[in-house]
Amino acid sequence: MIKPEVVADHNQKQAPTLEADYAALGEKLARRGVDIEQLTRAADTFAVALPSWGVGTGGTRFARFPGPGEPRNIFEKLDDCSVIHQLSQATPTVSLHIPWDRPDDPKALLEYAQARNLAFDAMNSNTFQDQADQAYSYKYGSLTHTSEAVRQQAIEHNVEVVELGKKLGSKALTVWIGDGSNFPGQQHFRNSFAHYLDSARAIYDALPDDWNMLLEHKMFEPAFYSTVIQDWGSSYLAARETGERCLSLVDLGHHAPNVNIEMIVSRLAQFGKLGGFHFNDSKYGDDDLDSGSIDPYQLFLVFNELVDIQQADSAFAPFYMLDQSHNVTDPIESLMYSAAEVQRAFVKALLVDREALLGYQNSSDPLMAQATLKQAFNLDVEPVLQMARQRAGGAIDPIAAYRASEYRQSVARDRPQSGQSGSGIV
Amino acid sequence: MIKPEVVADHNQKQAPTLEADYAALGEKLARRGVDIEQLTRAADTFAVALPSWGVGTGGTRFARFPGPGEPRNIFEKLDDCSVIHQLSQATPTVSLHIPWDRPDDPKALLEYAQARNLAFDAMNSNTFQDQADQAYSYKYGSLTHTSEAVRQQAIEHNVEVVELGKKLGSKALTVWIGDGSNFPGQQHFRNSFAHYLDSARAIYDALPDDWNMLLEHKMFEPAFYSTVIQDWGSSYLAARETGERCLSLVDLGHHAPNVNIEMIVSRLAQFGKLGGFHFNDSKYGDDDLDSGSIDPYQLFLVFNELVDIQQADSAFAPFYMLDQSHNVTDPIESLMYSAAEVQRAFVKALLVDREALLGYQNSSDPLMAQATLKQAFNLDVEPVLQMARQRAGGAIDPIAAYRASEYRQSVARDRPQSGQSGSGIV
Amino acid sequence: MIKPEVVADHNQKQAPTLEADYAALGEKLARRGVDIEQLTRAADTFAVALPSWGVGTGGTRFARFPGPGEPRNIFEKLDDCSVIHQLSQATPTVSLHIPWDRPDDPKALLEYAQARNLAFDAMNSNTFQDQADQAYSYKYGSLTHTSEAVRQQAIEHNVEVVELGKKLGSKALTVWIGDGSNFPGQQHFRNSFAHYLDSARAIYDALPDDWNMLLEHKMFEPAFYSTVIQDWGSSYLAARETGERCLSLVDLGHHAPNVNIEMIVSRLAQFGKLGGFHFNDSKYGDDDLDSGSIDPYQLFLVFNELVDIQQADSAFAPFYMLDQSHNVTDPIESLMYSAAEVQRAFVKALLVDREALLGYQNSSDPLMAQATLKQAFNLDVEPVLQMARQRAGGAIDPIAAYRASEYRQSVARDRPQSGQSGSGIV
Amino acid sequence: MIKPEVVADHNQKQAPTLEADYAALGEKLARRGVDIEQLTRAADTFAVALPSWGVGTGGTRFARFPGPGEPRNIFEKLDDCSVIHQLSQATPTVSLHIPWDRPDDPKALLEYAQARNLAFDAMNSNTFQDQADQAYSYKYGSLTHTSEAVRQQAIEHNVEVVELGKKLGSKALTVWIGDGSNFPGQQHFRNSFAHYLDSARAIYDALPDDWNMLLEHKMFEPAFYSTVIQDWGSSYLAARETGERCLSLVDLGHHAPNVNIEMIVSRLAQFGKLGGFHFNDSKYGDDDLDSGSIDPYQLFLVFNELVDIQQADSAFAPFYMLDQSHNVTDPIESLMYSAAEVQRAFVKALLVDREALLGYQNSSDPLMAQATLKQAFNLDVEPVLQMARQRAGGAIDPIAAYRASEYRQSVARDRPQSGQSGSGIV
Repeated sequence: MIKPEVVADHNQKQAPTLEADYAALGEKLARRGVDIEQLTRAADTFAVALPSWGVGTGGTRFARFPGPGEPRNIFEKLDDCSVIHQLSQATPTVSLHIPWDRPDDPKALLEYAQARNLAFDAMNSNTFQDQADQAYSYKYGSLTHTSEAVRQQAIEHNVEVVELGKKLGSKALTVWIGDGSNFPGQQHFRNSFAHYLDSARAIYDALPDDWNMLLEHKMFEPAFYSTVIQDWGSSYLAARETGERCLSLVDLGHHAPNVNIEMIVSRLAQFGKLGGFHFNDSKYGDDDLDSGSIDPYQLFLVFNELVDIQQADSAFAPFYMLDQSHNVTDPIESLMYSAAEVQRAFVKALLVDREALLGYQNSSDPLMAQATLKQAFNLDVEPVLQMARQRAGGAIDPIAAYRASEYRQSVARDRPQSGQSGSGIV
Repeated sequence: MIKPEVVADHNQKQAPTLEADYAALGEKLARRGVDIEQLTRAADTFAVALPSWGVGTGGTRFARFPGPGEPRNIFEKLDDCSVIHQLSQATPTVSLHIPWDRPDDPKALLEYAQARNLAFDAMNSNTFQDQADQAYSYKYGSLTHTSEAVRQQAIEHNVEVVELGKKLGSKALTVWIGDGSNFPGQQHFRNSFAHYLDSARAIYDALPDDWNMLLEHKMFEPAFYSTVIQDWGSSYLAARETGERCLSLVDLGHHAPNVNIEMIVSRLAQFGKLGGFHFNDSKYGDDDLDSGSIDPYQLFLVFNELVDIQQADSAFAPFYMLDQSHNVTDPIESLMYSAAEVQRAFVKALLVDREALLGYQNSSDPLMAQATLKQAFNLDVEPVLQMARQRAGGAIDPIAAYRASEYRQSVARDRPQSGQSGSGIV
Repeated sequence: MIKPEVVADHNQKQAPTLEADYAALGEKLARRGVDIEQLTRAADTFAVALPSWGVGTGGTRFARFPGPGEPRNIFEKLDDCSVIHQLSQATPTVSLHIPWDRPDDPKALLEYAQARNLAFDAMNSNTFQDQADQAYSYKYGSLTHTSEAVRQQAIEHNVEVVELGKKLGSKALTVWIGDGSNFPGQQHFRNSFAHYLDSARAIYDALPDDWNMLLEHKMFEPAFYSTVIQDWGSSYLAARETGERCLSLVDLGHHAPNVNIEMIVSRLAQFGKLGGFHFNDSKYGDDDLDSGSIDPYQLFLVFNELVDIQQADSAFAPFYMLDQSHNVTDPIESLMYSAAEVQRAFVKALLVDREALLGYQNSSDPLMAQATLKQAFNLDVEPVLQMARQRAGGAIDPIAAYRASEYRQSVARDRPQSGQSGSGIV
Repeated sequence: MIKPEVVADHNQKQAPTLEADYAALGEKLARRGVDIEQLTRAADTFAVALPSWGVGTGGTRFARFPGPGEPRNIFEKLDDCSVIHQLSQATPTVSLHIPWDRPDDPKALLEYAQARNLAFDAMNSNTFQDQADQAYSYKYGSLTHTSEAVRQQAIEHNVEVVELGKKLGSKALTVWIGDGSNFPGQQHFRNSFAHYLDSARAIYDALPDDWNMLLEHKMFEPAFYSTVIQDWGSSYLAARETGERCLSLVDLGHHAPNVNIEMIVSRLAQFGKLGGFHFNDSKYGDDDLDSGSIDPYQLFLVFNELVDIQQADSAFAPFYMLDQSHNVTDPIESLMYSAAEVQRAFVKALLVDREALLGYQNSSDPLMAQATLKQAFNLDVEPVLQMARQRAGGAIDPIAAYRASEYRQSVARDRPQSGQSGSGIV
């Protein structure tokens, strides 16, 4: 972790500007009847999980361009995650990916995390790659393969991930599979979906009572003609057929072009099946870009739904995770910046005057309804985010503090790389 | 209707070529173990309903360019439909649209249709336009409007359409609404969907026991930010919540870009909710182009699913309708040509060697699985379609026979138009 | 126009809040080295033309739902436009559409406009609809029709529009045609484009030396398989072949899904062919939604390019027009709100620290490069817009002032409507 | 290569059916005035280049699932290519990719190819990956990097590829770069394009007089916000600025959703800049699926343009290459099947009655114009393809002959794999 004095020094320099900005914003909000302190406390409650795989440099099928000091194992990944949380104060948990992060000693891993103020969020299984030691290949499917033996192997892997997660304090299993087809005719659609349901139920049966199973859909990639869990409709059906604690997970980059994602959020929540999010942004496909970097208003509209749902149902508490591929940035910087972007969308959504909005909706006044959203979105809540971070012990400007700390240079020295350039998987 | 001797004369000229082509195809199919006579009989069973609105020239929001001899009322529309069926022998029913086709005397309309060998398919209600005499406007919604009075008016219109359909021998109500929003914030998503469910149930309660209610979803247009029944997921949920005989209807042009429509067909059927189709084709949006004109392989893949489902469930019998906008062609010609294109896809799907296909699927042989589909698709089944039509009393080449009949020139004389050209809104 | 005392009264009430907000923002900007007064003066220079057709309620091919007090002729349209400019102080010009706005007496129209502080921007021709008195139909094309007589008729219409525009003080002709096809094979691509080039050159020959000819491309609609000027590539080629003062016009809603529009802006400008904009927003197709209502960050990114280009080439001065379809709002309100949204994007783009940005670009620091854009975008510049309006004599909050004025109620009394509701085509 | 007796044995068994099918088709075509022999000779002239990288199993960023007997070097790749050409008789050339295929001894490679009846098509450079020995990384660009040194390195690599190609008898260089950005602001659009033009000219200067330089555009991937050569417009501009023999190459999978690719083909040809193709198919993005597997009608429409252009300009001779990623099939099978699919589209396009088509276009008869295309497309030309192959010494059914040969089993024994599963690049 970064030396506290580096953070303190950074904050000390930034504090006067922050205080002036914060006071000015507080007065402005007060003129509109909003208490900035309440908002800052709400901002402080926001948390989003880090993906363990996100602290390494990502890549495409064409190439991967590694950066210096990449973590070589799950312990070094946790080191990086702890820096992110230390500075951003919005990412107290880590989502693991098995087998990439499989520990020899789960207890040691748990203690290592706890020592860094980190806990474990949803566990992720992996049946979209073959592992060296496995009996059957997933080339033609895993949970939906036409062969029962392959399906059984994939089920058992998921059960193993649940068992591991229990030891680590996780409370959820996220299931994403690449199963699908590249050719019309390759796969029998109804048979494949029936296999999926059978497999999902078998995994669900192994779930502890206080766990959720999260089904992640995706339109395409790695399958390029059809995907078994291709959209929210199939995800919903699978979750409903599987069990009460089986829910749908929405990844912002997994939809068809032009689709209204905030409406999907609403539908799944209305029918009790919205379980979690993978936050990122995209312009073309599953680009896994940094959250809010392409369409920050869409991210705000998603949180506008989430806040509205939460106010109607206080028990509503979906899992929030970042899921991004950092191909051209320092992953630590991207994750800190992205956590703040998601938090920013949440805080702005809190600022929506919901009573006024409902009034405009009910009186068919679309211009003022949209203006009500824009009034919240246009506010510059940066001082609220900064103040919440500072008070929690983080950095006013996490990127600047991180660069000042020279953490990257330090781990670049401590983590010699294998030297292989190119050729990565995310 | 067209004089039988015109058709007979046409067929007589075409018959020698057809017989040679048919014999050659018969031998070719026989070499592959397929009986062409059985295929021709199956082709003859195919039927797709005509949309009453389809025999007039369509348009866009920019302009409409009328053609000569457009039908001026439902009786003239039925005249045109009877010509289409006479020549194509694949379109024995007509789908009405109320209020556009509301008859003063339903009994007279029924007799008029019967005299032309026509029956009535699904009835279509209309709450996406305002009528001169209605109390409330649908500008801000109909079945999902925030005002109960507006919703009630829309419900009552649907019930009226059912009552009318009962008198006409129809067995289904198709409900498509334009309800949605043009701005983020305009509509409360969960409230709107809840209103939809309430309204749909109220309509369903008025449905005779042997009727189906068909819910048609659409991604966008006329609403451009959100649509209440925007995709098959929402359609499925609404159908399930409404009742057992409430099913989803799939229009081929109502999906997001790149979406795998044949998979949606499969999913809805697997969960017992596939009720019908609006056939057309599209390249960009709801273009309402002629069926099979842009992507004939996709149409074949849809029928590949339908035939597969039918072979697994003999009770499966969705409603088939054409729904196209004929902006630049003679609508009669487009509808005859399109009916044959849909029939062609059906016949080719019958030719798929399903046992071989399942074998390739189960042995993970995607190349041969896709080749099995292509082998059926690549066959030129035109002689089968022609022979089926000829034997049923239709025309070997409906377009050529129609042009020879000079029907269009005849109705152009009999149906003087109002003279208004254009009529667009921007 | 609205009584000055209504505006004054409105501003008086809002002024204290504005002054406090403006002072606070001024201090915040000063802490970052930015002079708010300079920014406010720059905001005041911003102008965007109003579309004459935009003050009426728009519609879709399904329906149009008129509102009260719609303007019935070009004079009433100018009345509405003058209110928009009075309150927003950002829309000093109007773009006419011929024949919709063809005046009997151009001189009288010009004087009417001048009396309302309005001038005329680009003229728009119309060969996508048939007029009652024209010899040939545009059903199968206008400037690209296979018949020379039709092409000549369309050329002459454009020349007539130029002649009219000269009398009105316009300096540009915008040419958008719907020419294209609905079926593969309908149109010969190379012949159609060759016809377009010939026709465009003939129009260009009639252009005064100080005019620009603006070519507007569009992916689809009203043609649904192919469009002659379908994208910026075809637009560029046509503009280059036509002449030096023939330029491309970019409408934000006329692109394929996912396309990077700001990059198109950059390319056209780099090759000297960016001539103008039709501002609006869209989620699906050419939705013609209010500017900035769906993706305000994209609008900002477009202006980020424009400001960058302007700083490199002070002669760069494209035509800016709003082009929206107001289906569910009061058009006057939408146009005022939209003008402010475009202005907001411009002002935020001025706030981008271009020196820092270029530095990050040159040192391959994408995280800080994007953060530099976000720092500008996240600022709440509403006080700058409000102050610029107030100082220019407009309203601090144009919507509120407009509603207070009861202008709509007043014109609803003065402009009895024809009574026809609806008016759609399917 | 496969033993001639295996092919002969296969053909002998298939010949009677082929002869019957061929005779029947010949009579059918004769009834329509078409000489099947002429068509078969034309089919025989068709050739498309094989991508050297295509004979290995492809993958996605998530995983690669290798198959047995994958070629381990360029010589084994040529062995596989020779089998493909032996059986399909449509793929006499191979397109190399440097550095993947860089030979120690170019002369030996050339002789090796010639001994297998193979020649070399366009050379492909690679600056989208880093190589172990290179001085500068392409992480932030190659030909468009902000650093001159990096650009120079990328230019020199291309020049080296040209030098190598000269020794191998190639006549073209294909340049595809991944340069672009993942964040708004990361790249200065105009500067990047200016760098591209400078770099392209520098490469062009090294080109022999009888070579072409082919610029390949792509909408996205590996860059996910912007790509420097993102569409045909940018490709055209770059080709025009670079030089007369610099042309655009169209990859069928590199476009925005819904884009009309055949129109792009037409535009580039009309302005003298259509240089070549990468054939494949796609449903979502750059899926690199087998040609014709998703939308065979689109492939036909592309060839409909190509045949039309060729008939107008006999000198028109673009480079044809397959560029596919074979993730789930035996690459040899996919390439043989795909070559035949492209050839099928070409043969069907030859069958279009162009005189009739032009007549329908000129008389505004879209229904018959599209029917004219469909009449050609619907014909089953499989016997023509089979006969052309058989006569040229190939296999009537290449897949069946290949499986009978047990070539794959043989090379699986001869080419032990490294054992690594997963983790590929295409």
